[in-house]
Amino acid sequence: MSGNTPTTSISHSDAHRIFVRGADLVEELIGHLTFTEMFYFELTGRRPTRGQTALLDAVMVTLMEHGLTPSAIATRLIYHSAPENLQGAVAAGLLGVGSTFIGTMEGCAALLEEIRTAPEGMPARARAVAERHRQARQPVHGFGHPFHKPDDPRSVRLLALAAEHGLAGSHVQALHTLAQAVDAAYGRHLTINATGASAALLGEIGLPQPILRGVAVTSRAAGLVGHILEERSKPAARHIWHLVETGIPYEDEPDAP
Amino acid sequence: MSGNTPTTSISHSDAHRIFVRGADLVEELIGHLTFTEMFYFELTGRRPTRGQTALLDAVMVTLMEHGLTPSAIATRLIYHSAPENLQGAVAAGLLGVGSTFIGTMEGCAALLEEIRTAPEGMPARARAVAERHRQARQPVHGFGHPFHKPDDPRSVRLLALAAEHGLAGSHVQALHTLAQAVDAAYGRHLTINATGASAALLGEIGLPQPILRGVAVTSRAAGLVGHILEERSKPAARHIWHLVETGIPYEDEPDAP
Amino acid sequence: MSGNTPTTSISHSDAHRIFVRGADLVEELIGHLTFTEMFYFELTGRRPTRGQTALLDAVMVTLMEHGLTPSAIATRLIYHSAPENLQGAVAAGLLGVGSTFIGTMEGCAALLEEIRTAPEGMPARARAVAERHRQARQPVHGFGHPFHKPDDPRSVRLLALAAEHGLAGSHVQALHTLAQAVDAAYGRHLTINATGASAALLGEIGLPQPILRGVAVTSRAAGLVGHILEERSKPAARHIWHLVETGIPYEDEPDAP
Amino acid sequence: MSGNTPTTSISHSDAHRIFVRGADLVEELIGHLTFTEMFYFELTGRRPTRGQTALLDAVMVTLMEHGLTPSAIATRLIYHSAPENLQGAVAAGLLGVGSTFIGTMEGCAALLEEIRTAPEGMPARARAVAERHRQARQPVHGFGHPFHKPDDPRSVRLLALAAEHGLAGSHVQALHTLAQAVDAAYGRHLTINATGASAALLGEIGLPQPILRGVAVTSRAAGLVGHILEERSKPAARHIWHLVETGIPYEDEPDAP
Repeated sequence: MSGNTPTTSISHSDAHRIFVRGADLVEELIGHLTFTEMFYFELTGRRPTRGQTALLDAVMVTLMEHGLTPSAIATRLIYHSAPENLQGAVAAGLLGVGSTFIGTMEGCAALLEEIRTAPEGMPARARAVAERHRQARQPVHGFGHPFHKPDDPRSVRLLALAAEHGLAGSHVQALHTLAQAVDAAYGRHLTINATGASAALLGEIGLPQPILRGVAVTSRAAGLVGHILEERSKPAARHIWHLVETGIPYEDEPDAP
Repeated sequence: MSGNTPTTSISHSDAHRIFVRGADLVEELIGHLTFTEMFYFELTGRRPTRGQTALLDAVMVTLMEHGLTPSAIATRLIYHSAPENLQGAVAAGLLGVGSTFIGTMEGCAALLEEIRTAPEGMPARARAVAERHRQARQPVHGFGHPFHKPDDPRSVRLLALAAEHGLAGSHVQALHTLAQAVDAAYGRHLTINATGASAALLGEIGLPQPILRGVAVTSRAAGLVGHILEERSKPAARHIWHLVETGIPYEDEPDAP
Repeated sequence: MSGNTPTTSISHSDAHRIFVRGADLVEELIGHLTFTEMFYFELTGRRPTRGQTALLDAVMVTLMEHGLTPSAIATRLIYHSAPENLQGAVAAGLLGVGSTFIGTMEGCAALLEEIRTAPEGMPARARAVAERHRQARQPVHGFGHPFHKPDDPRSVRLLALAAEHGLAGSHVQALHTLAQAVDAAYGRHLTINATGASAALLGEIGLPQPILRGVAVTSRAAGLVGHILEERSKPAARHIWHLVETGIPYEDEPDAP
Repeated sequence: MSGNTPTTSISHSDAHRIFVRGADLVEELIGHLTFTEMFYFELTGRRPTRGQTALLDAVMVTLMEHGLTPSAIATRLIYHSAPENLQGAVAAGLLGVGSTFIGTMEGCAALLEEIRTAPEGMPARARAVAERHRQARQPVHGFGHPFHKPDDPRSVRLLALAAEHGLAGSHVQALHTLAQAVDAAYGRHLTINATGASAALLGEIGLPQPILRGVAVTSRAAGLVGHILEERSKPAARHIWHLVETGIPYEDEPDAP
């Protein structure tokens, strides 16, 4: 590849070998790395430690499946409309991995970064952050959940895993510090939710904040494929469409010829 | 542009002028052509006649809006999830302009082509086509509608416009011939539906069959923008989501902080 | 449709009639409205005046086609990869109608709104806006063009059309006022570019700022369909791919079996 | 959830627990399953054996990254155009996981199914399949590669892994049988390529043919996130665009204000 061409450092190949991030795909990666390890290696060029892999696996397992979310509904409706085009149905759902849901993970990661690196120390900055949100009547990204009260069980589990693997560093500490400040500012207990805990864990394993959405996108892709497979054996899309249009359940009608 | 580069004949420009299909964009197109005329010119390199424009307008007006279709529902859900990204919400809906709905327009166009060009004459081939579908228990693309009976009023209107503009040529004739054969083969009246009439009109104005889906995609893009605008002033996405998840209407709940 | 269902006011139908924005689709719209008029009607519920239609047509004709843009390249590559799925190729290209290019239209519309409604009058606010951007070393949305100097010919044409149709109101006036302030602040002439002029015209015809991107999306959909049609007769995607990978032109090789 | 609503069996939850495929997400899945195991569980409702996991990991590691493919180029161009919208850039690239490239994996899986289940035995059917393709001058899906000759090293590795894990069953046998028949029919050696070997391995672990594209989509999503991360630190999109438009390398130009 010439020096003047737009090039990538991620991968190159010749007739006999394929390299990804400098490693021989066939000799060093296939059969040696799990998908999760390979994803980390693709992103960072470093092989993850066992603990880093465990946390990335845990976050991706957490984010994969949430039932009939807007993304899953969109995927099912689009698959019904264009079943020859599975990738389009997945893409339609992934387009919903945006600010409303995943933005809270990115927003929480930004808050943790602010708190971790505050010259005045974490507790003071955490109190300032909590107070700033309370006064602006804005939700604190990564906190609160409409159903999982008093605590989101996923967050408890994710944070325990970080500790278990010796990876509860400054991101996790910042999150706990913020949690105390939030409870104090609001005068009641607000759970750390799954996006908040995920933000802390992904920070601990060194993934940069602007790419966190990409972890969610990849994990959710797997979940949406699961919905497509279920849609094939147990179709819901026509039912969903009918319910939305009319408010009443769908009853099969004889088709036009 | 060098002769070795991948190039397009559609457009080129210099500091003072921009050309599309050989015409000066500023001098000859902006302010001179409607969007529909420009679309035809973009596709074919020819300026449409008044009749051709009228039929393309009529088909695109017909296809723009159909209420809460799977595409519109997907667009609204994705817009709710990522409102910063209007183009993603439109793209999600457009991904549903696939075989289930628009495939019937393409399928009907293929049947009309088969009948128009049959050496044994249109009526014989139309009878064979109808019989072939009846025996295979397959729907005849472009015929039948679950609600609009006995006739789809859009088809009646579209075909009348073709006649009015002197453009009811062999595609329209093939459609009418097929309609008679279908009614005879099934022993009852099946309406020509809107996709069937659209296929005939787009054939009459010289658009090639493989691109018909693109006419639907463009028209539907406009309709989906309309749904996004309504979603902004009168949100339905959370309601849709709740209804699909639970089967009961959504009641606003106090948000988590 | 029950009062409890998520509903749309855009469209409803019964067995004999289809209504869009309260008008009978078959009796009042098909054959009566152009696509552009129908798009305006879909968005606003109002039939446009002749001048409003002319300006919307002019903007959409301007935005349709720009040669091998990132969007057009993406569409061609994706069409090559999945030719069975035209809508996916269009969707891929439309996903690029984002902040980098179309954001300038929206950004300019926001500036025009700020200037139009400033209590201290347009000239003072325009000077403040220009100065603010100069000091922050930020581009002024809607101004400047790398190739079209001293003036973008499209903008000249679009603004002339607004005047011709008696629609050069406060949005156009704000743009001209800002242009004078920009030239003064930077000490040289910067052209109003096509996105700036488009922002002013769409403001004049009453389209809300958050939906302007949707006008670009719809127009660009038509242009991308044109690129797909050209890709079918004169394929460029493999050539593009090879050129990007290697920096040298693609030579057909005998395919693997 | 009422019996009349469109429902999913994949997931449900209450205030304290979330279930996926009948397992408690927090107690049984997070921290217990890798992403790959969870993906298999999401798709099938069964926990994979160690060997099944190894093969799915191996295939997904193989499919993740291939350098500047059409998908990766599209993702980079769209990310450049809409950087606020990472999921849109990934979606644009995924739309290219279609018939041209991944269709060969699905096509090979269909051939293997035909051969595995042929009443006349695998060798006879394999010969018939090879002959059928040769006479029709059609490529045999899963065979041949333009660069990797005489053998694609990835396929060798993937098939060795299947044997190593005791999972070289009838799908792998059908592939080897077809390979012999292909070499005999064409009178020269054609490599089993990576899509061919992947089809056999995914068949061995029990994933249904219509969902194989979804495995590729998920794996490629991870690779495209890697390209976005590289695009952020080492931008190539403007360079690609310039190269495609002009055939010459891009040189930074002073930006318009």
